[in-house]
Amino acid sequence: MRDSIYLDRLNRCTQLMQKTEFDVLLLTKPSNMFYLTGDGRLCAYAMITKQGQVALGVPTTDVDDVTALAHFDHIISFEDEVGMIHAIADHFKRFGIQKGTVGLEFTFLTQSMMKMVTHPHAKPEKVEIGDCTPILSGLRLVKDSEELDLLRESAKIADIGMEAAVKAVKLDLTESQIAAAAEYAMRHAGAEGFWRTYVSSGPRTNIAHGLPTNRSVQKGDLVTIDIHPIVNGYSSDICRTVCVGDPSTEQENAYQDYLQAQQATIAEIKAGVDIAALEKTFHDQLKAAGHGAHIFGPPIHGVGIDFEEAPLPPGHAFFHGEKEAPPLPQNVVIAVGNCGVYLGVWGVRVEDTNIIQKERPETLTHYPRQLLS
Amino acid sequence: MRDSIYLDRLNRCTQLMQKTEFDVLLLTKPSNMFYLTGDGRLCAYAMITKQGQVALGVPTTDVDDVTALAHFDHIISFEDEVGMIHAIADHFKRFGIQKGTVGLEFTFLTQSMMKMVTHPHAKPEKVEIGDCTPILSGLRLVKDSEELDLLRESAKIADIGMEAAVKAVKLDLTESQIAAAAEYAMRHAGAEGFWRTYVSSGPRTNIAHGLPTNRSVQKGDLVTIDIHPIVNGYSSDICRTVCVGDPSTEQENAYQDYLQAQQATIAEIKAGVDIAALEKTFHDQLKAAGHGAHIFGPPIHGVGIDFEEAPLPPGHAFFHGEKEAPPLPQNVVIAVGNCGVYLGVWGVRVEDTNIIQKERPETLTHYPRQLLS
Repeated sequence: MRDSIYLDRLNRCTQLMQKTEFDVLLLTKPSNMFYLTGDGRLCAYAMITKQGQVALGVPTTDVDDVTALAHFDHIISFEDEVGMIHAIADHFKRFGIQKGTVGLEFTFLTQSMMKMVTHPHAKPEKVEIGDCTPILSGLRLVKDSEELDLLRESAKIADIGMEAAVKAVKLDLTESQIAAAAEYAMRHAGAEGFWRTYVSSGPRTNIAHGLPTNRSVQKGDLVTIDIHPIVNGYSSDICRTVCVGDPSTEQENAYQDYLQAQQATIAEIKAGVDIAALEKTFHDQLKAAGHGAHIFGPPIHGVGIDFEEAPLPPGHAFFHGEKEAPPLPQNVVIAVGNCGVYLGVWGVRVEDTNIIQKERPETLTHYPRQLLS
Repeated sequence: MRDSIYLDRLNRCTQLMQKTEFDVLLLTKPSNMFYLTGDGRLCAYAMITKQGQVALGVPTTDVDDVTALAHFDHIISFEDEVGMIHAIADHFKRFGIQKGTVGLEFTFLTQSMMKMVTHPHAKPEKVEIGDCTPILSGLRLVKDSEELDLLRESAKIADIGMEAAVKAVKLDLTESQIAAAAEYAMRHAGAEGFWRTYVSSGPRTNIAHGLPTNRSVQKGDLVTIDIHPIVNGYSSDICRTVCVGDPSTEQENAYQDYLQAQQATIAEIKAGVDIAALEKTFHDQLKAAGHGAHIFGPPIHGVGIDFEEAPLPPGHAFFHGEKEAPPLPQNVVIAVGNCGVYLGVWGVRVEDTNIIQKERPETLTHYPRQLLS
């Protein structure tokens, strides 16, 4: 992307930092680094000062690659963990930061990673630490026009992956083999990667995170397929349910109930809407259809560089270290249909990625929404 | 697996706990839960008492699935994060634990997850926390015969994936499309999943973590392929380097230097060997061949349920929250060739998974080791 995009993002970042206690951010989460610098990878860090300066620390092996990809002011390479610790110390020194507060990503750092980036040989003793998750989530909430184009492209590839998976479904194929069809098609269509593929069948459609197994699909099974390509760094999220053979009346009815709740919720998406209100619409519809006892998990989340990111519904946000989301402005991107209804013996689910617009949303994922069979 | 396996593992776990300050463990890392109970999944926990009792907390949607798969004494289901917190509190109460120390996985828990499992409504106030990573890594270090069979099966599928990827390499195919071939083949051969696939080409073979991109391979490129199937819960690790067309003399020489260092290191694997000694052999060989300045990263790590697990070389172990490994007994499984030599313009790498035996190791991954072209 253009360098001016990163300058603009850094400018907005420093403006947000002015309102907080943070004198500097020390980022290690690839998606946050990618957003602010154009490159994000594991075993690396980005330090962002209140003046918008960017210092990177990367493995020696990666210096040329990062230099070609990232916007930054200074880069240090390191050979190992000790080197990384010293690089962090050098960057604190270079920016003259010996007290104040450094923002760290509490939603990403494990205890052991935290110990490393705050090691006495890395962080100056008098520098306090705090959680900068809300700053980064706030920055990334509203997508700019380049990002929206990338998200549209990602969603196209999600549709391609879904078509391949749905066409692959047949008797005796395993859940894992159905996942293979989606993943293969997405990579061949231009995805450089994907987040975890979920494919569950039969009784396994009732579980919350149905990772593929070697269970073979059987006649009468529902099969839930949930995929998330990564295309030029941007993700999308689509889920569909397929029936192997003709669905029972109960399956068809539950599916229609779910689809109607999902579509009613999408119909309410417009600039200024509250994520909690959307969640309420979704749940109220399902309750009205008799599924009050079949609901599990938050039905909506943000989509961007990460396939699940802020905004999250309030309760979920709190426990995942995110702040409560503001009324959602135009150009926030959300997936609706994140969790299904679960009838104990099976569950159903439909999910689509949407851009919030002034009036009606732009739904990015288009693959047919009937109960496929 | 047989119930007696979990009873045995729990018995060994409680024996290790006796030697520590821990009165109870509260596990959320899927691989650790899987090892001790037969089931591991996200958004769930396993509490293990000093007496070997197992209490599980799982989403309501997952109760039947977990009940069929896991060994446990008590299970609570929950609807959301608040429910999970209350379930943890209930289990502390059920086991009469209101003081003492609970072991948590510091190498897995983010700050926000930590906040949740130690929430005042979850953990009794007087219960202290500590890091139980070394207990779990210690337990999982030596593989039993059932695990060794599963690792052999996983390695077979790694070979199948590698063959598919190598055969797929051709001019103008992207790194991502090469990854697709490996992943598709592994899922079709019986893998229920895989860890991140690394495929890098040309100058990108020089970077430490070469995730696939949409770069097309060009004549004269080296292509590094690193794959890790998950088969019945067990992983394996294989890496090979392919040349598109005929390799240059420099490429061929660097490759042979690397392969010789890797094979010399594998030849030294036997019960009682020190992981640091193996690392030294590897590095000394590379230095002797003139690659002292081309080394990056630790060349050896354990393989099991996780594709990268303890034992780790000392420095790496420390910063990743693991204890220094003891001399390695028989039936520890290690991958040798985790990092390559990096000549700036390209790098080369070969990696294989091995079972430590009394004398010579059993190498599980067999795909041909010449520089393929």
